[in-house]
Amino acid sequence: MYSFRNDYSEGAHPKILEALVKYNLVQEDGYGEDSHSIKGKELIKTHLGSNDCNIHFIPGGTLTNLVAISSFLRPHEACIAPFTGHIATHETGAIEATGHKIIELQTDNGKITGDIIAPTLKDHHFEHMVKPKLVYISNPTEVGTVYSREELKDLYAFCQENDLLLYCDGARLGMALTLEANPLTLEDMASYTDAFFIGGAKVGALVGEALIISNDTLKSDMLYYIKQKGALLSKGRLLGVQFETLFTDDLYFELARHGNKLARLISNAFAEIGCEFFVDSPTNQVFPILKNSDIEELMKNYAFYVWKEIDEESSAVRLITSWATSEETVLKFIDDFKAIISK
Amino acid sequence: MYSFRNDYSEGAHPKILEALVKYNLVQEDGYGEDSHSIKGKELIKTHLGSNDCNIHFIPGGTLTNLVAISSFLRPHEACIAPFTGHIATHETGAIEATGHKIIELQTDNGKITGDIIAPTLKDHHFEHMVKPKLVYISNPTEVGTVYSREELKDLYAFCQENDLLLYCDGARLGMALTLEANPLTLEDMASYTDAFFIGGAKVGALVGEALIISNDTLKSDMLYYIKQKGALLSKGRLLGVQFETLFTDDLYFELARHGNKLARLISNAFAEIGCEFFVDSPTNQVFPILKNSDIEELMKNYAFYVWKEIDEESSAVRLITSWATSEETVLKFIDDFKAIISK
Amino acid sequence: MYSFRNDYSEGAHPKILEALVKYNLVQEDGYGEDSHSIKGKELIKTHLGSNDCNIHFIPGGTLTNLVAISSFLRPHEACIAPFTGHIATHETGAIEATGHKIIELQTDNGKITGDIIAPTLKDHHFEHMVKPKLVYISNPTEVGTVYSREELKDLYAFCQENDLLLYCDGARLGMALTLEANPLTLEDMASYTDAFFIGGAKVGALVGEALIISNDTLKSDMLYYIKQKGALLSKGRLLGVQFETLFTDDLYFELARHGNKLARLISNAFAEIGCEFFVDSPTNQVFPILKNSDIEELMKNYAFYVWKEIDEESSAVRLITSWATSEETVLKFIDDFKAIISK
Amino acid sequence: MYSFRNDYSEGAHPKILEALVKYNLVQEDGYGEDSHSIKGKELIKTHLGSNDCNIHFIPGGTLTNLVAISSFLRPHEACIAPFTGHIATHETGAIEATGHKIIELQTDNGKITGDIIAPTLKDHHFEHMVKPKLVYISNPTEVGTVYSREELKDLYAFCQENDLLLYCDGARLGMALTLEANPLTLEDMASYTDAFFIGGAKVGALVGEALIISNDTLKSDMLYYIKQKGALLSKGRLLGVQFETLFTDDLYFELARHGNKLARLISNAFAEIGCEFFVDSPTNQVFPILKNSDIEELMKNYAFYVWKEIDEESSAVRLITSWATSEETVLKFIDDFKAIISK
Repeated sequence: MYSFRNDYSEGAHPKILEALVKYNLVQEDGYGEDSHSIKGKELIKTHLGSNDCNIHFIPGGTLTNLVAISSFLRPHEACIAPFTGHIATHETGAIEATGHKIIELQTDNGKITGDIIAPTLKDHHFEHMVKPKLVYISNPTEVGTVYSREELKDLYAFCQENDLLLYCDGARLGMALTLEANPLTLEDMASYTDAFFIGGAKVGALVGEALIISNDTLKSDMLYYIKQKGALLSKGRLLGVQFETLFTDDLYFELARHGNKLARLISNAFAEIGCEFFVDSPTNQVFPILKNSDIEELMKNYAFYVWKEIDEESSAVRLITSWATSEETVLKFIDDFKAIISK
Repeated sequence: MYSFRNDYSEGAHPKILEALVKYNLVQEDGYGEDSHSIKGKELIKTHLGSNDCNIHFIPGGTLTNLVAISSFLRPHEACIAPFTGHIATHETGAIEATGHKIIELQTDNGKITGDIIAPTLKDHHFEHMVKPKLVYISNPTEVGTVYSREELKDLYAFCQENDLLLYCDGARLGMALTLEANPLTLEDMASYTDAFFIGGAKVGALVGEALIISNDTLKSDMLYYIKQKGALLSKGRLLGVQFETLFTDDLYFELARHGNKLARLISNAFAEIGCEFFVDSPTNQVFPILKNSDIEELMKNYAFYVWKEIDEESSAVRLITSWATSEETVLKFIDDFKAIISK
Repeated sequence: MYSFRNDYSEGAHPKILEALVKYNLVQEDGYGEDSHSIKGKELIKTHLGSNDCNIHFIPGGTLTNLVAISSFLRPHEACIAPFTGHIATHETGAIEATGHKIIELQTDNGKITGDIIAPTLKDHHFEHMVKPKLVYISNPTEVGTVYSREELKDLYAFCQENDLLLYCDGARLGMALTLEANPLTLEDMASYTDAFFIGGAKVGALVGEALIISNDTLKSDMLYYIKQKGALLSKGRLLGVQFETLFTDDLYFELARHGNKLARLISNAFAEIGCEFFVDSPTNQVFPILKNSDIEELMKNYAFYVWKEIDEESSAVRLITSWATSEETVLKFIDDFKAIISK
Repeated sequence: MYSFRNDYSEGAHPKILEALVKYNLVQEDGYGEDSHSIKGKELIKTHLGSNDCNIHFIPGGTLTNLVAISSFLRPHEACIAPFTGHIATHETGAIEATGHKIIELQTDNGKITGDIIAPTLKDHHFEHMVKPKLVYISNPTEVGTVYSREELKDLYAFCQENDLLLYCDGARLGMALTLEANPLTLEDMASYTDAFFIGGAKVGALVGEALIISNDTLKSDMLYYIKQKGALLSKGRLLGVQFETLFTDDLYFELARHGNKLARLISNAFAEIGCEFFVDSPTNQVFPILKNSDIEELMKNYAFYVWKEIDEESSAVRLITSWATSEETVLKFIDDFKAIISK
């Protein structure tokens, strides 16, 4: 039984474990002041161009989102997010628990634009309503789609014009940065958002996100917020060593590219057979629409989620590949699927 | 330069890293449903006697405290804690940030008793004041002292009589469980508290605390709270593997005992020389009072914190030993100190 | 210039001021323990049938909503509300500020039903999502529609079956209780909700809402919550005297009925002329669709809100009548309108 | 039975009720935009000198404190307050419920100074601790003592030097402004604090506090916070009319002076007899130490609180006078007391 359920089924990329073992008994300062955290941040900064950013390592995406958003906003300010956004759906109300409303906007493909946001700004015009202040996006989105550099730039310009902060959840950011058709870089991310994070856990780390803040007004006292929310590890080296390794020799990008590549193998093969897709995702999540009977067969040897019922006979499923998925496994999966449908 | 500053200067015990490497590429379910988390919990349960407990692994002590306390209390209910308690001093107001007041009580040695608590209960008698509901203690305390089984039992009885919950922060719990003079067990902890946690990071883990809830009324929906506060790791295996390893062959207790033993070497040697102590700590924190000039000399080769100014010429320092400290290092430190004072 | 903008443009019904003057210099206990608060609650209880309810007077609807909802819910539990609900739109995120998400549901007429709620319950099935726990409705709704006894009974039955609390915002409750076509009573409200409030400010009081809790599990420690949120007036007599007066000789119902009656005068007259309505409201809010040019003319002598643009030439407006509106004023308004359209 | 329990036992000063009656049926805008609120603010501003202040009327002292403090602070920032401060003791954790720790400082007489605060600032030096940001004082304090102009000026200078905000709870502010020996003015209050409030309920109003903000950085978006916390009354006229009346012909000061004067009658008479006092309060709270047997006798005809047990035979009691207390009543009380002790 092989699982395509998610990209966190395995542990860490072996180079990360090697580094953890290598430096294990060297004494280091705690709370993110260890040499590896310092080095990891330096390595990331080389990708950010001239942007003067603050970087903080935080163990977990939900934790990063809630630390960032609750520190960026005053009590009456609200987030705007696509209704599919992770903070709106799958973080158990973590943002509201810090006191802030999420205004959820409709969207077809997990992405939002200035045009989608504008009516909300017009509506929220006085003190009986929350004040929209931060736009939350994910790149890739929760359904695998990506913002291009132009889209991001436009959205950021819209936010700037409307006194909104733009914050990007990058749980799978690597996958958006390694698409040939989408020449988006970390430097773009730093240039066209106020803050974003680079997720580690889905790109080879055991745990850890790098929160990157480019907007100067958001930088002060961040360590207080991180500590207050329980997000400051005593052994910060655990996060430091991982990001140091991921950003040495572009390992992070290599792992993300691998996940994307294997997903393309699947989507191309399925498309060739005539399969349709629930969403057209270029990243490591694939959403083919399959016959329920075929799904049942496939599930005898593969684990994955049924994403959405399409009609009585078919459903969209979600298949996720990662740095840890082998090409061999994917090719076998494709063959197995072909065998099932040709029965 | 060797650091006695804290017990989290090194990484993990080598057996933990071995296990992480060994199981690294085996696919596991996420969010704490992996086989290692399940096994780790089973191993811990063997120490809890007949107590029917829920166990949750959480990455960090502050995070564990805030998840537990904010889920146990209704909005108007308050914590009682010694003024030296970690939640009262060094968690950046994490508990208040979830909405709850901490009523701080005076104490000489970091410990509180029913007698110390009673006047507070008498005072807080009506709806214009918060309602004291949970007593927070640490064992060992922040100054290295410990609650004996009898003391814990008495405090728990007091709490039961007064409709108070007893919660114990066990960041260094192992050190309180491995003192010959204090036959306290995990079973006692489960029997005489409503909830407590076993801290991993100071006893050989990279990160991770095991929150153990024995009071049935506190168990429901805990995963919701854990997720909402950002404390649910996607790769829960990281915590599972560590606790599985720590509770295999009593490694956890062995490591804690080692830390205590080396601290005794220091305190006995210093006492023999005539040194006095700021607090009489039986665990792995030692607080000798030294001449400032001697401190200055010692700091040329050793790192440690000056804890408190005693008078113009002397200060109490804090020395911490751990599983990673070697006996050799400690003996050399003692010799070096003797050499300094005999100059 | 006469204003139909809202039902709180005037002060209090004269009988309330008379009572305030009459009892002004009698010493009373503070914080709701005065004789008038006690009497006011007794009078309200005579309307609640056999329901054993707790009653609390609170100054303001938003304050009542946030006190009630934040005390009823545990941190991970969420409200369900129609997207037009007052807490969802016009309370500046007051509920989220206490930590709880509002799940907003689509509805045509401001009302929700079990059928509308059911899919949300199915979706929210695990700990990565908030747990829906309380259904918020308003009666009348924010667009003037009402829940009938049967509708309320059915919704309550649905809530009971699904372990949901039903809470009703009664800012204008009197108007829903005094419609001939809708034989709904306060006893029904207490029987078919877990808690609701009777709004005073829109039915003749200066300020004040009566929160009524029939569900036993929600009653404990309410005074703590009320005090903590700043909702416990030292001179509770201000609220007590008002509710005592409103519930003496059914003044509350008489005032509400008057508001409804005058609104019917308007809506019937407008309908006769052929006017259409944005919403079919039987209560004291009327939403006729008028030509923009007629609106402009009317606004020379009357104040009211333009509610929604319908097309380039016409808009829905909102006209509100109250206990303080005279029949004479309304008849003149109708005549003036007829004169305008017949030009 | 006459009650000296507090200064909110009666309703409003008759002039306030007269004004409420007079303007009752005039239509006004809601939410504080009525002509009386505007006029009331203008009248208050004439007392503030050249200070450019924002003024908001809020129904209740706890509500005012929590609105102000939670809007002034970022999440990791804390209040400093004397341990006797109202927010620290008798507001049911209202401030902590908004997420902020209160650091409680010891003091003999309810007042704090820069010297008392300084050690706390030194201690709180890094991100593992809350960041002290706002100093909360009450004037008069909860035990009736007052800050002089010089003391306030010094404290404000200390705050300015240390990047702290100074906020003053003025529940009984009038009593501190009408002492011959203490030439403190509203202009001083505006000059030497960042924000403060003028309490109405204890100086003749039914309900209502005027929050006055002189620090420009604290002014923005206050109406959002006020609405979010449920503190924005629809019939804002209720508050407006009262402050308009209180600040017409200096009624507010006259009422406060009266309360102080009658308290002096009591304290002078008791002192003459040889009575000692628990606190030396120059305002309308008096704390004589009486024999328990005399207290028992007095309580047959007068209601008041026993404040603190002094020894087995005597206790301090609290007697409060107000605008509504008559000189006749006070003289009779003094006579009755003399009769009791001369038995």
